[in-house]
Amino acid sequence: MTGLPSILFGSHIDSVPNGGNFDGPLGSLAAIEVVRILDAHDVRTQHPLEVVVWANEEGVAYGKPLFGSRATAGQIFEGELDEVWNGVRKADAVRAIGGDPDRITAARRVEASFHCYIELHIEQGGTLDRTQIPVGIVEGIVTIDRYEATVTGLANHAGTTAMTDRRDALVAASHLTLAVNEIVRDQAGRHVGTVGRQDVVPNAPNVVPGVVRQTIELRDLSSATLVRLAAAIRERARRIAELTGCEIAITPLSHNEGAAASPAVRRVIGDAADRLALSSHSLPSGAGHDAQSMASLGPIGMIFVPSVGGISHSPRELTSWEHCGIGADVLLQAVLGADVSDILA
Amino acid sequence: MTGLPSILFGSHIDSVPNGGNFDGPLGSLAAIEVVRILDAHDVRTQHPLEVVVWANEEGVAYGKPLFGSRATAGQIFEGELDEVWNGVRKADAVRAIGGDPDRITAARRVEASFHCYIELHIEQGGTLDRTQIPVGIVEGIVTIDRYEATVTGLANHAGTTAMTDRRDALVAASHLTLAVNEIVRDQAGRHVGTVGRQDVVPNAPNVVPGVVRQTIELRDLSSATLVRLAAAIRERARRIAELTGCEIAITPLSHNEGAAASPAVRRVIGDAADRLALSSHSLPSGAGHDAQSMASLGPIGMIFVPSVGGISHSPRELTSWEHCGIGADVLLQAVLGADVSDILA
Repeated sequence: MTGLPSILFGSHIDSVPNGGNFDGPLGSLAAIEVVRILDAHDVRTQHPLEVVVWANEEGVAYGKPLFGSRATAGQIFEGELDEVWNGVRKADAVRAIGGDPDRITAARRVEASFHCYIELHIEQGGTLDRTQIPVGIVEGIVTIDRYEATVTGLANHAGTTAMTDRRDALVAASHLTLAVNEIVRDQAGRHVGTVGRQDVVPNAPNVVPGVVRQTIELRDLSSATLVRLAAAIRERARRIAELTGCEIAITPLSHNEGAAASPAVRRVIGDAADRLALSSHSLPSGAGHDAQSMASLGPIGMIFVPSVGGISHSPRELTSWEHCGIGADVLLQAVLGADVSDILA
Repeated sequence: MTGLPSILFGSHIDSVPNGGNFDGPLGSLAAIEVVRILDAHDVRTQHPLEVVVWANEEGVAYGKPLFGSRATAGQIFEGELDEVWNGVRKADAVRAIGGDPDRITAARRVEASFHCYIELHIEQGGTLDRTQIPVGIVEGIVTIDRYEATVTGLANHAGTTAMTDRRDALVAASHLTLAVNEIVRDQAGRHVGTVGRQDVVPNAPNVVPGVVRQTIELRDLSSATLVRLAAAIRERARRIAELTGCEIAITPLSHNEGAAASPAVRRVIGDAADRLALSSHSLPSGAGHDAQSMASLGPIGMIFVPSVGGISHSPRELTSWEHCGIGADVLLQAVLGADVSDILA
């Protein structure tokens, strides 16, 4: 031990429902493989090495992504552990998987407690796959704003309620879904917007829907763009509410601030690819990653490998074994490179 | 016993999710009360009296309404008992509540095995409540056609998939929901159309929806109108599929043929209201009822009482105790009137 801060690397292993096998596990397993290889070859680094496997990165449960890394960065929201999902308080869910919610603040790391954080992940977009470049060096991660829209009409009998007497929450919610799609497409830029979750109450064939809850998720490198898009969506929601006789309430669910990658860590990753004679390409990440929580504490960098057809969050998600191996090789070389680099410079 | 066929009367006690307290239970409890009152007063009828409480009238489970009365009418569909809902085969669900699915055909009644069938029910529409008329005499019950639309796009990552690369099943399904609403409203008439159930897969905030399944329910007294509406919806679905890059398959889920009430039973009900000095009004039923299954076997009639604001299939469903009492009184008088009437004439 030299007293130097550790090099932190890894990823997550949770998945979206009906997701793929590579989003998360690749970076987690590769991190473990890196320390196994170094151990097998009896390699000694100057900095201690620390492998991390984050919990609940996707945030499907409880709707707030990056839970594990946010806990480490001290970014748990006020009251977050009291939130209920599927009938279970978040604190109890943490307990159920062996954690201690009363000591969650003890998971917090302080600034500069690590030399740098490096994460290997599949790209999830189609850029590397399309250009046949095996290594992506991430420039930064987009900001993600999530809202919940609650559309309230009046549940009523689907046979006896005349069309003109209806306040159908699903009709209003459908207008809103199309409005989100249209507003996001109408403005030029790389931003995206998605209604991904929608729950209808009571959800029966013979009942006019009374309440619909849906998520609206917006992503861009610029927070200002996200604020502008949300304002346009709220304005359209007001008009849809008038048109349909329903009420529409749009409340913020989460805000995940994007993050820039450290120039020094980007350089370390680029050098690693060069040493392995692999071509590389710099690109932003449209997906959120645990690396952005870590960015509030110290320098971060990410390695991307190609995802076939850019498909992710789907059972069809695929990264070839060759590219998985390349990712692990670049991670190994980047860890060794970081060990001998003055990252903060 | 006189060897005469019985007078059959009752209703159902199942409910839609988050429904009201009157749809079904009123007619079931009133039927029991009628025989209690007759028994307490030692009244002997010529015809035997038979009270019936039907199972799964709403058809929320398994999507096919009027299960109990269809079994009695011999209208169970081919393979219906093998259908799976919530992971349970329908035959096993019947067994779980104490029935014997292997003997379901034994529940079948033959034609003319009852003198007539009378059902008391809340109106569920707003006609009686609006006009302050306490008794409705049902002219007939609408035909109900249910379809399932399966919209298939491609599940993908909501952060990394550009808007122009998406095949978002929920965007397509929202177009379809609005098309159903528009087509139904555009044609003059009393028909209605509802998308009441919609399930999104995988239903996560950060995944572009891959599959959406929704029910489309159409109701009218005229089957020809329903066929025309369904054709117009299919045509629009084809255009939506082209526009969104999704596939849309629309398959029939159930067809519940409407039924006319027997003129003789309508007369018996009208006479009952007259004897009680209650004003009455003839009207169609926009809701399906077990009476329509019974109509295939013999003469049927229905008594409606007002439903406040026409609200039903909602916790706000309300029929005043006064109107509940009136309904039971009319049922009692109608049963006694039917006992001395030549219904078949």
